[in-house]
Amino acid sequence: MKEPNDYLQINLLGKDEQSERLSRVYSGMREAGISAALIHNNANIYYLTGRVFRGYVYLPGNMRPPFYFVRQPSTLRSDSDDLFHIRKPEEIASALASRAMSEPGDVGLELDNISYSSAQRLARAFGLAAPSKNMSPVMRAARSVKTRMEQDMLIRSGEKQTYIYNRIPHLYQEGMRDIDLQIEIERASRQEGCLGLFRIAGDEMEIFMGNVLTGHNADEPSPYDFAMGGLGLDPSLPVGADGTVIKPGIPVMVDVNGNYTGYMTDMTRMYYTGSLSEDTLRACRLSAEICRTLAGMMVPGAKASDLYHKAVDMVSEAGMKEYFMGHRSQAGFVGHGVGIEVNEAPVIAPRSKDIIEEGNVIALEPKFVIPEIGPVGIENTYIVTAAGGKLITTAPEEPMLMD
Amino acid sequence: MKEPNDYLQINLLGKDEQSERLSRVYSGMREAGISAALIHNNANIYYLTGRVFRGYVYLPGNMRPPFYFVRQPSTLRSDSDDLFHIRKPEEIASALASRAMSEPGDVGLELDNISYSSAQRLARAFGLAAPSKNMSPVMRAARSVKTRMEQDMLIRSGEKQTYIYNRIPHLYQEGMRDIDLQIEIERASRQEGCLGLFRIAGDEMEIFMGNVLTGHNADEPSPYDFAMGGLGLDPSLPVGADGTVIKPGIPVMVDVNGNYTGYMTDMTRMYYTGSLSEDTLRACRLSAEICRTLAGMMVPGAKASDLYHKAVDMVSEAGMKEYFMGHRSQAGFVGHGVGIEVNEAPVIAPRSKDIIEEGNVIALEPKFVIPEIGPVGIENTYIVTAAGGKLITTAPEEPMLMD
Repeated sequence: MKEPNDYLQINLLGKDEQSERLSRVYSGMREAGISAALIHNNANIYYLTGRVFRGYVYLPGNMRPPFYFVRQPSTLRSDSDDLFHIRKPEEIASALASRAMSEPGDVGLELDNISYSSAQRLARAFGLAAPSKNMSPVMRAARSVKTRMEQDMLIRSGEKQTYIYNRIPHLYQEGMRDIDLQIEIERASRQEGCLGLFRIAGDEMEIFMGNVLTGHNADEPSPYDFAMGGLGLDPSLPVGADGTVIKPGIPVMVDVNGNYTGYMTDMTRMYYTGSLSEDTLRACRLSAEICRTLAGMMVPGAKASDLYHKAVDMVSEAGMKEYFMGHRSQAGFVGHGVGIEVNEAPVIAPRSKDIIEEGNVIALEPKFVIPEIGPVGIENTYIVTAAGGKLITTAPEEPMLMD
Repeated sequence: MKEPNDYLQINLLGKDEQSERLSRVYSGMREAGISAALIHNNANIYYLTGRVFRGYVYLPGNMRPPFYFVRQPSTLRSDSDDLFHIRKPEEIASALASRAMSEPGDVGLELDNISYSSAQRLARAFGLAAPSKNMSPVMRAARSVKTRMEQDMLIRSGEKQTYIYNRIPHLYQEGMRDIDLQIEIERASRQEGCLGLFRIAGDEMEIFMGNVLTGHNADEPSPYDFAMGGLGLDPSLPVGADGTVIKPGIPVMVDVNGNYTGYMTDMTRMYYTGSLSEDTLRACRLSAEICRTLAGMMVPGAKASDLYHKAVDMVSEAGMKEYFMGHRSQAGFVGHGVGIEVNEAPVIAPRSKDIIEEGNVIALEPKFVIPEIGPVGIENTYIVTAAGGKLITTAPEEPMLMD
């Protein structure tokens, strides 16, 4: 048998990659007036080290490298003198003192990510009466521009997700319900290396491995802030497939987890049996055209809100506004950043203040829910370059026949 | 096509069931000195209504029925005059005033569940300078004793999970890696109605659909507070199967998601090919014997810590203490409550203050990691009755041959 690892390196990024990420984080901290920070959220710890562990990354300010405070696993090691195994966060301050690091006047915490109780406890561990500096927006902004390494991981996820989406027609069998097809897509994705877990930021968001919708089920609003809804199979998780049988001429929308590397791409495609009506095909072409148009506008310096308004203009001109981003309930965005989590910055929405930057990775999902037809539209993930959005989810954009 | 629902009832529990749960919650609030509360966490909203929605359940105190503040979905309705569709939590106070409900002096919030930023915002929406009363322990205690309806849902999950576990020997094919077997178990579970999502309470806990471990991989500690670890497939989710090929004579431990009804059972069983050594079989019998002994002690009024110490005594007597609940890294508990989430109260741990109550639902998982053998042990879920724990995960406890 393979022997277990004696130890594991805590920093999997290498010095240069980590420095590039740290410089983005420190630049945001400077703007926000935060001198030092303690990071606890799994997605943020993964961003700073290339691995998830239970504990904290302390950023001492002034572009200095981080200290690691590890609760689990016990096997983590560092080549430098910057790692402490601790049992509780109250040990952090004295450990820092042992490295001649003075306590900061105020330490930034991820106030949008960690619980009220955790934030209070960490603040007290640093001698503060209450938390005040919020690191969540700083980390969100830093993570919105992907390094070359991150882009490569997204490109790899996009390739694998594309491979699976091209195989979906062969996974279909006559008589399947939406959930039956979804289960086969889940399995094929997992066999290709999909990690399964769908990391989502934010307030009480949850989903399993994605969303397969067909027919009227698309017009069932869900509790969650996704582009599309669906009744789901159970009121404990009311989103997505509800057991509707897939019927000829009724499109099937597939939006399933592309997390193959720790970084996930987001792609939606349409599938069908029989033949689709001209209205359906027209809506699908409009969605693809909006994607192309917005990808062209997706240049550094562009306003995210302008992209949204352009999409609405195109939809209105086509007389499709009442079906855009839902029918009975309409989502208030047409795109969003993706990366470690499925809902990162920038947000392509009417009141978004986000400005597009080179290295943003953005999923565009101009979708429709049309009564008597169901859900129609595609979704693509793009890397923002000086020349506009570079497509990294390359399955065919036309609806694919399942036979 | 099936028409979409015009509307959905917000309370799926019915008046009597909801009253039974509310009386537990109100009793806990009285003890904690909390006069009114605002509930936001999905698991707690599901407990109070039988469905997940985006918004808030307001508990006005004095055993009065709740008010519902719904952000999404728009389709929720109530037969009583107790539901408000809102866009933001700041609308709650004026809505309450419109029902002649005065604002409470202090409103309890789920301070262990909701983010610092959310807690501050909700407190201000109620005119408070800061949150002070913590509803999280109240909800945790209320949910730890399951109603008859909840017990029935757990029994149904246990039946389905048992059916899948009995099928696992037929899912195995020669040459499979741990992850290959896991993917087939995931698919079979989903086909049987498993919802997939593994709800976990607590600080940065995450897992996909469960854990299949074999060989030395069991001796790789993970960042998470599960009984067992494993390296996982990627440092972004370092837990569970790592691609180890399943070998004759090396046991395979399966601990996969039993969420079939919104309530999940927790079961672990051993599988193997070839034949197992006497040491392996002895360890597995010891695990089953600890389960039976602790189930017998699991009567109302028993101390959770006594159960833990009894397990350690049995393990020590058998000379197995250094392998108990891990080898290089040992988990500090032998059991935990299960229900809507996989880690509920009571906790069977050395310093647990929990007292066993009738209606608790407890998973016991006395497991070992033995060098050169790997992970060994079983896990069962029990409903606490006056006569002790009633087993609801009934797959055979002996290791099952996969052929």
